[in-house]
Amino acid sequence: MAEFKVTPWEVEGKIDYDKLVKQFGVSLIDESILKKFKKITGEVHFMLRRKIFFAHRDLDFILNEYEKGNKFYLYTGRGPSENLHLGHLLPLTFTKYLQEKFKVKCYIQLTDDEKFLFKRNLTIEQANKIAYENALDIIALGFNKKLTKIIVDTDYAKTLYKQAIRVAKHITFSTAKAVFGFENSSNIGQIFYTSMQAVPAFLESVFQGKNVPCLIPHGIDQDPHFRIARDVLPKLGYLKPASIQSKLLPGLLEGGKMSASIPNSAIFTTDTPKEIEKKIKNAFSGGRETIEAHRKYGGNPDIDIPFQYLKYFFEPDDKKLKKIEEDYRSGKLLTGELKQIVIEKITKFILEHQEKREKAKDVIEEFILRD
Amino acid sequence: MAEFKVTPWEVEGKIDYDKLVKQFGVSLIDESILKKFKKITGEVHFMLRRKIFFAHRDLDFILNEYEKGNKFYLYTGRGPSENLHLGHLLPLTFTKYLQEKFKVKCYIQLTDDEKFLFKRNLTIEQANKIAYENALDIIALGFNKKLTKIIVDTDYAKTLYKQAIRVAKHITFSTAKAVFGFENSSNIGQIFYTSMQAVPAFLESVFQGKNVPCLIPHGIDQDPHFRIARDVLPKLGYLKPASIQSKLLPGLLEGGKMSASIPNSAIFTTDTPKEIEKKIKNAFSGGRETIEAHRKYGGNPDIDIPFQYLKYFFEPDDKKLKKIEEDYRSGKLLTGELKQIVIEKITKFILEHQEKREKAKDVIEEFILRD
Repeated sequence: MAEFKVTPWEVEGKIDYDKLVKQFGVSLIDESILKKFKKITGEVHFMLRRKIFFAHRDLDFILNEYEKGNKFYLYTGRGPSENLHLGHLLPLTFTKYLQEKFKVKCYIQLTDDEKFLFKRNLTIEQANKIAYENALDIIALGFNKKLTKIIVDTDYAKTLYKQAIRVAKHITFSTAKAVFGFENSSNIGQIFYTSMQAVPAFLESVFQGKNVPCLIPHGIDQDPHFRIARDVLPKLGYLKPASIQSKLLPGLLEGGKMSASIPNSAIFTTDTPKEIEKKIKNAFSGGRETIEAHRKYGGNPDIDIPFQYLKYFFEPDDKKLKKIEEDYRSGKLLTGELKQIVIEKITKFILEHQEKREKAKDVIEEFILRD
Repeated sequence: MAEFKVTPWEVEGKIDYDKLVKQFGVSLIDESILKKFKKITGEVHFMLRRKIFFAHRDLDFILNEYEKGNKFYLYTGRGPSENLHLGHLLPLTFTKYLQEKFKVKCYIQLTDDEKFLFKRNLTIEQANKIAYENALDIIALGFNKKLTKIIVDTDYAKTLYKQAIRVAKHITFSTAKAVFGFENSSNIGQIFYTSMQAVPAFLESVFQGKNVPCLIPHGIDQDPHFRIARDVLPKLGYLKPASIQSKLLPGLLEGGKMSASIPNSAIFTTDTPKEIEKKIKNAFSGGRETIEAHRKYGGNPDIDIPFQYLKYFFEPDDKKLKKIEEDYRSGKLLTGELKQIVIEKITKFILEHQEKREKAKDVIEEFILRD
């Protein structure tokens, strides 16, 4: 079995999610949780049904409390080192869905400090600028203006730092090293940083002066931060934050790695229809080498990246997805045809997104939390 | 020779300053520097003459630049974990003197974050409150209202944190460990902290958008912070900060350790005349056990703590100090008489200080730097 490595800053190899669940110590989302979602919201989101959001910590607690009338708040985030791509939009889109269904507050942290500290050639000014660019994309997803606050770390440091050192006082170098794999050559800002990411997990409790449950939807790679936060927060008198974790959207090329340094590996929210078309056409396919072979033996949707994009993001309708899957597996649907479906769906989504992103410029200041 | 240990957070044993100078790699203040002071200001402060301020880094550069018309600014600080005692006032008083003579700006950093991170039972609220109490004492020393800004770390974190991470990016855990002696059990806030203390050493250059030389008067125990700052700042395009270091005022009791947990070891700015009298009478003396023996063999001012207080702080006049020293050594001046001189001088100073401290309450807000 291939080796793999998942940290908040690096994903290497083909991820074995079963192994990761054991390694991280998270729980799988089971039928009882899906039933609870159905009971409360009347439906089960396709990302839950399809186990895109597949794991959690204390999600049952969050839903039980909600049923009792004790509302949670949402917290998610983003490290602004580049434009957003579809992989970034996945947890954000789901977070926005949860906000809509549960009608709850949401904090979105843009960690320009983190990206500055972990990217050798990135300046603070660049990371900060990208944070505000990313904020436009986030707002474009439709977050509720009254219930959503975006935190840009270096611009909200007055509030964050004072809370972060409370967290930091309870984290030893040993712990940080064990959880994140720091080395002697790691810089001391990197070592401290996780304290900053812990703050929004109890910030609403600070503001309200009483414990408010917090649910953090995020890509599974960020779990180490919240594992530490769950250890520390009770020591400060706060609840352990709950979390719900998604798998990572695979990259477009063979191997599935998505990387900003390989533009063809991801579709960015700023891409043109031409770029989208080119990237999907170039994407790793589960189809056969010739049309004849494809018709005869069929394609493999399980490894087909364009198909995965439908499953993860662009075809919420299970029946339609199943039909595409079956047709592709049987050879009825050709690779070029499948790709065309995906190109059309993504292009439509991105063009609409870009329009909403333009409009977001008028309201961004209402979303940004300032101290 | 007794072992000793000097870190920013701990002083143990009897300090051998010659050894410390070599260990830290600072330079002794020599005649050429004293001459330069005389040339520029027309005098040499008694703390310089008596080598209370005895060591430096790049002080010659600071004075040469000043002569060329390139003014420096001053930066000093204080870790607010308790009321100020005379040991804390020593570098602050000298800093105020430098400000007066050179007519330069001064930043004074009150590191409530540091004290919170390094003192197990201190809360942020407590450290922050003490910072503002300490600020009153500092203002009472006579700092120029127009030229002096007091920084309380957690209240100025918006500006500080953004600059501190620039510093942190250039400090590895190895370096922090080697310089400060951190261990695996050190908390990650402690490890990061030195970055915050580095910021005022280039903050004026940030504000002015050009390099302004910085001179840091401080107790020698703080040197490790500025040794790191001198390594890092040129990497950010700033000048190495210069520094001038004082010996540490000895504590009142045998062994010379000054500790907040031993109230009798130090005189605090809040002490009453009765407390001052009691503490000095109780102080470690270089006198003989009986009046007869004292008259016959004389006392030893070199180890006599009350005499040291005159030398370090309360008798600026060299001739008067010399007379007291000679009379004490010869046995002409008794221990009780020497102590009476010191009690009177300190009581007068503290009572005047307490009045000025009261008045400082009216102007404190004008000194505090806010973002």
